[in-house]
Amino acid sequence: MAEIKQVIAVRTDLDMGRGKIAAQVGHACVMGSEHVRKTNPDWHREWWGMQKKIVVRVDGLGDLEYVRRRAIDANLPWSQISDAGHTQLEPGTITCISIGPAPGDLIDKITGDLKLL
Amino acid sequence: MAEIKQVIAVRTDLDMGRGKIAAQVGHACVMGSEHVRKTNPDWHREWWGMQKKIVVRVDGLGDLEYVRRRAIDANLPWSQISDAGHTQLEPGTITCISIGPAPGDLIDKITGDLKLL
Repeated sequence: MAEIKQVIAVRTDLDMGRGKIAAQVGHACVMGSEHVRKTNPDWHREWWGMQKKIVVRVDGLGDLEYVRRRAIDANLPWSQISDAGHTQLEPGTITCISIGPAPGDLIDKITGDLKLL
Repeated sequence: MAEIKQVIAVRTDLDMGRGKIAAQVGHACVMGSEHVRKTNPDWHREWWGMQKKIVVRVDGLGDLEYVRRRAIDANLPWSQISDAGHTQLEPGTITCISIGPAPGDLIDKITGDLKLL
């Protein structure tokens, strides 16, 4: 089995500072991990030691939704994060999406061309 | 009970880009959440809905270790993250620390004076 990893795609078109981005990615990491812990314990166990995480960028909501659609089509676990809007963003703004933890070769078909954040 | 939150303190003296910081904070969020899920399920349940996360800065390893020492003294859950060193940092470099999820008033005694990242 290919190495299990988690990829988080972050919107770069929003006005988020590095602390805001980090918190949003933190949400995505926790939600993605918890989702797969329940739905695919084998993947989760395999991933748990190194917990490989890759943070990449999408230019806007359309690109993020395209990633989500392809994850759904590939039957890969995904978790999308919306901001509560208490600080920098409008309530409900979708900021990032986690794909996995899942086999890296399957995720790479979706996010392999995206640049690192 | 005060609102349950998780605070992640990140070193700003390391040469980390925003994607690297986000991944390290992601590790801290997952490890902190999982730790408290096992050790204090009540706090974890209370926290789970909003999953409040605050990302703050420490200027160096000494300040991070001071935060850790005070968390230990206060008997608060903490999770420290070391980088595997595959990319930007030396292997084993301590990059950030999670305090909580735990009652905010208790965490604020330790990290309340730290600036947002």
